[in-house]
Amino acid sequence: MRLKIKKLRFLTGRPVCMIHEKTAKKMSLHVGNRVVIKNNHKNKIISIVDTVSGIIKPNEIAVSEEILEILALKDKEFVSVEITEHPKSISLIKKKLKGEKLEKHEINEIIKDIADNALTEVEVAFFISAVYTKGMSMKETKYLIKAMVESGNRINLNGKVVDKHCVGGIAGNRTTPIVVSICASTGLIMPKTSSRAITSAAGTADVIETIARVEFSIEEIKKIIKKTNACLVWGGALGLAPVDDKIIKIERLINIDSTPQLLASILSKKISVGSKYVLIDIPCGRSAKVSKKQAIHLKEKFIKLGIIFGLKMAVVLTDGTEPIGNGIGPILEVKDVIKVLKRENSPKDLEEKSVYLAGVILELVGKAKKGKGYEMAMEILNSGKAFEKFKQIINAQEGHLNHFKTPSFSLEIKAHKKLKILHFDNMIINKIARFAGCPEDQVAGIYLHKKKGDVVEKGETIFTIYTESEEKLHQAKNLYEKDKDKVIEFS
Amino acid sequence: MRLKIKKLRFLTGRPVCMIHEKTAKKMSLHVGNRVVIKNNHKNKIISIVDTVSGIIKPNEIAVSEEILEILALKDKEFVSVEITEHPKSISLIKKKLKGEKLEKHEINEIIKDIADNALTEVEVAFFISAVYTKGMSMKETKYLIKAMVESGNRINLNGKVVDKHCVGGIAGNRTTPIVVSICASTGLIMPKTSSRAITSAAGTADVIETIARVEFSIEEIKKIIKKTNACLVWGGALGLAPVDDKIIKIERLINIDSTPQLLASILSKKISVGSKYVLIDIPCGRSAKVSKKQAIHLKEKFIKLGIIFGLKMAVVLTDGTEPIGNGIGPILEVKDVIKVLKRENSPKDLEEKSVYLAGVILELVGKAKKGKGYEMAMEILNSGKAFEKFKQIINAQEGHLNHFKTPSFSLEIKAHKKLKILHFDNMIINKIARFAGCPEDQVAGIYLHKKKGDVVEKGETIFTIYTESEEKLHQAKNLYEKDKDKVIEFS
Repeated sequence: MRLKIKKLRFLTGRPVCMIHEKTAKKMSLHVGNRVVIKNNHKNKIISIVDTVSGIIKPNEIAVSEEILEILALKDKEFVSVEITEHPKSISLIKKKLKGEKLEKHEINEIIKDIADNALTEVEVAFFISAVYTKGMSMKETKYLIKAMVESGNRINLNGKVVDKHCVGGIAGNRTTPIVVSICASTGLIMPKTSSRAITSAAGTADVIETIARVEFSIEEIKKIIKKTNACLVWGGALGLAPVDDKIIKIERLINIDSTPQLLASILSKKISVGSKYVLIDIPCGRSAKVSKKQAIHLKEKFIKLGIIFGLKMAVVLTDGTEPIGNGIGPILEVKDVIKVLKRENSPKDLEEKSVYLAGVILELVGKAKKGKGYEMAMEILNSGKAFEKFKQIINAQEGHLNHFKTPSFSLEIKAHKKLKILHFDNMIINKIARFAGCPEDQVAGIYLHKKKGDVVEKGETIFTIYTESEEKLHQAKNLYEKDKDKVIEFS
Repeated sequence: MRLKIKKLRFLTGRPVCMIHEKTAKKMSLHVGNRVVIKNNHKNKIISIVDTVSGIIKPNEIAVSEEILEILALKDKEFVSVEITEHPKSISLIKKKLKGEKLEKHEINEIIKDIADNALTEVEVAFFISAVYTKGMSMKETKYLIKAMVESGNRINLNGKVVDKHCVGGIAGNRTTPIVVSICASTGLIMPKTSSRAITSAAGTADVIETIARVEFSIEEIKKIIKKTNACLVWGGALGLAPVDDKIIKIERLINIDSTPQLLASILSKKISVGSKYVLIDIPCGRSAKVSKKQAIHLKEKFIKLGIIFGLKMAVVLTDGTEPIGNGIGPILEVKDVIKVLKRENSPKDLEEKSVYLAGVILELVGKAKKGKGYEMAMEILNSGKAFEKFKQIINAQEGHLNHFKTPSFSLEIKAHKKLKILHFDNMIINKIARFAGCPEDQVAGIYLHKKKGDVVEKGETIFTIYTESEEKLHQAKNLYEKDKDKVIEFS
C-alpha cells in the first residue's frame, strides 16, 4: 500500500510508524506488527506499527525521526508500506536459546536482521539472553565478530595502526589521552574512537569534549589523523560495527555483559578502524568489573581471537581495586590528564599506569626493545613531546586548553578522626559522581584529596563533591551518607 | 512535573507517552526512560517516554490509549509526571539469568512490576529467557503461580467448581464445548474461560464467538453461571492472572514456552476462577506440541503442583498425532460440535475424546464410580441433556444456533491415485487454515473428508479449503503445494 508521509517529529528510540486504524484494518495489521517501509529510491527499513485515529488521515503514515532520517523522507512524500513476515532469524535465536550451536550463515542472518531493524528490541533481548546463558564457542565468536564488522563502516589508514581498549569500570582511570599522545608522537597511527560514559562518571569522549569537538565524520577523522597521527573522538555515530551499539543499548537495560558479546564488541570496533596492533587493559580485582580469575579467562580468549584475526595483541591485567587519578568527572579528569602531560603535579598513579601502557604498545609494535618500553615512554613524556602531540590533536579537533569553569556547589567530606585509608570503592565513587551530575554536567564529579594508604588527620578533607546543581549536591550527599561505610574503608 | 493531557488516539501495545523535547530536557528525560504518571486519584502507571516536537506543546503530554483507559484520563486533565528509577526487579531478573534461585519475595517483586507495567517488554523478555534457559524449581514455580494469581481478579463461585485445560496444538480438537455441556448438565460448575487462537486455526473463544457473545465482565459471567452452571467465554479481558497474558504476548514473538511458565500459566487461571477440580489434557506424539516423554514429565509436575495448591487433579495423555474432528476453523469446528451434541453424523474421534474427557471429570468429582465415567458421559450425551445444556449456555451468552454463511471460495484437494492415508500433520494443517484466513475469517478453514486409515479412490476429495478471500485461497493453495509431501502421508 502507498501512504503519504505526515511529518510529525517524534523520537522513539527504535523505528516506529503510526498508521490509521482504518488502514491497519484494511492491511490486516495489528499493533506491534512489522512493516517494511520503502522510499522512492527503494531504500527500506523495517518498522513496528502503532495504530492511531485522529492524528493522521487513513492515507497517511507518520514515522519516527529514526525512519525520517534513515530514509531521508520529506513531508507528503509517498512511501510503500507492506506487512512483513517474521524474519527467519527468530527461529535461529530460539535455536541458540535451546543451547544449540549456530553456523556462520545463521549468525550472519541474525546480525544482518539486527542491522536492518528487522528484529524488535524484544527479539534482540532474546538473542542477548541466549548468548549470555548458553555462551558461544570460539568459532561462533569469530563469526559474530566478522558479521558485526561487515555490518558497518570501515576506516582504512596507512601506517602502523594501533589501538588500545580498557574494559572499564575504574573511576578516574583516564589513561587514553596520555597513551595516545605518547605513542602518536613516535609516528604510530592511533585512530582512537571512544564511548561516552554508560554507568561511570565519564568516558574518554566526555572528557575530551570538555576541551574539543569529538563528533566528526569518518572523512574528517581521516584528515585529523593525517595531520596528527591520531584522534580522540566519539565512536558512537561513525557506524563502526553499529550492531554492537544496538546490542549494548539493550544489554544496558539489565546491565549484563556476556563474554562472547564483550569480546565481539571490543574486537569488532578495533578491526573496523583497521588496527593491526591492539592493547587490551583489563583492570581487575575488588570493586573492578571483573575478578582476577575472569580477567585471566578473558585474556586467553582475546589472545586466541587476536591470532584468528591476524592482530598483534597485548593483553595486560592491571590493578583495578582503587580509583586512578584524583579527579572523577569530565573536567576533573581532563585536568589530571593535562597535569601528567605538562609534568606539573601529576597524579602519580595515573602517570604510572599511562606510561606503563604506552610502554607495552611501544614494545608490541617494535619501537622499543623488550623491557625498554616503559623507559622510552617516560622519556617521551618528560621531553614534552607527548604534551605537544596532545595539543596538536586537540587543536585539529577545533579545541584548545582553556580555563575551566569553577563549579557552583561543592561539599567537602572530612575525616571524623585520624585514620588511614585502606580502600575506595570504584562503583560507589562512580555512582556518587553520577548523582552529582556526571557526565552531562561537565564540572561535576569528585576530587580525591587522599588515596589508599594515606593517613588523614581529624578534620582534613578526604574528597570533595562538585556540581552545578544544589539539588544534585543534595542527592549525591544522601547517597554518600547511605553508603558511607562502603565508599571508604579505613583503620 | 504537572502536564496537561492532550488526547491523541494512538495504540502502542504498551504504555507509551509523548513528552515535548523541551520538557524532556528540563526533566533530564531521554527517549526510552520510564516515568510514573499519576492522575488526580493517585492511580498511577509506569510509561516509556517518546520525545516529540510539534505534535504537542511543552506543557502537554500525550499518552497511548492503554494509559488513557487505565487511568481514565480526560482531555486537558492534569497529571503528575515524574522520572522513575530502574525497578529493583531488574537485578532479580539478572540473578535468575545467572542461574541462581529466586526467593518468594523476589518472584513477587518481579510479577508485581510486570503487573504494574514497571518493566519494559525487553526486560520481561530477559525474565522469560532466564526462566526458559535456567528453569525453575517446584518451589519457585509455586511462588510464580501464587504471585500471578494475586496480581489479578478472582471469581468466587459456590458448588463443585471444575475446569479443564488442553495444552493445545491439535487441529480441530474442539472438545471443550462438549465436555462442558455434559458435565454442567450434572450440576457441576464449569466457569470455562478460553483463549483465542495464537498459532492454531481457532481457539474455543473464536469457535463459540461464531454463535454467541464471548466477551463479558466477571459480574455478567457470574450471572450466566448462576443460570446455566457454566459459561464458554473469552478469558482475555477478565484480568485473571493478567501477568500471564503479558508474558505470553512476549513469548509468542519468538514462540517459546518454558515448562515453569506453561505450568504457571495454566494453573494460575484455574486457581483464579476458583476451580477445585482440574482436568489437564496433554495431547502428545508426532506433530503435537509435546512428545510422549515431555508429556510424562509435565504430568508429574502438574500432579505435584495440584497437591501443593489443594486441587483434585486428573492429567491425561491423549493421542496428539492427528487432527480431531473434520472441521478446522471457527465455523467448521462449531458445526462439528453441534453434530456431536445433536447426535447427528458425529465425527467419531471428536465424540470419543469428548466423552472420554467428560468421563474422567465425572469420576474425579465423584459423580461416577471409578471406571464408569465414560458410560455415564455417553448416556448424558445420548439423552440430549448435554445438547440442552449447550443451548442454554449459548442462549445465556446472547447467542443462538443460526444457519451459517456459505464460504465464497473453496478448493478441493483430491487424490491423484488410489491411496491409504497414514498421517495428517497438525502443524501444517493449522498453518494452511491460518493462510486461508482463520480465525478472523470465521467461515475459513479446512474440512477433512478423510482421516487417518481411510482408503481414498483416485479423484476423490481428501480435504477442502474454505475462505472468503480469493487472495487467501491462493496463499493457502501455495502453502499446500509447497508442503504437499508433509501435509498428508499415504501409501
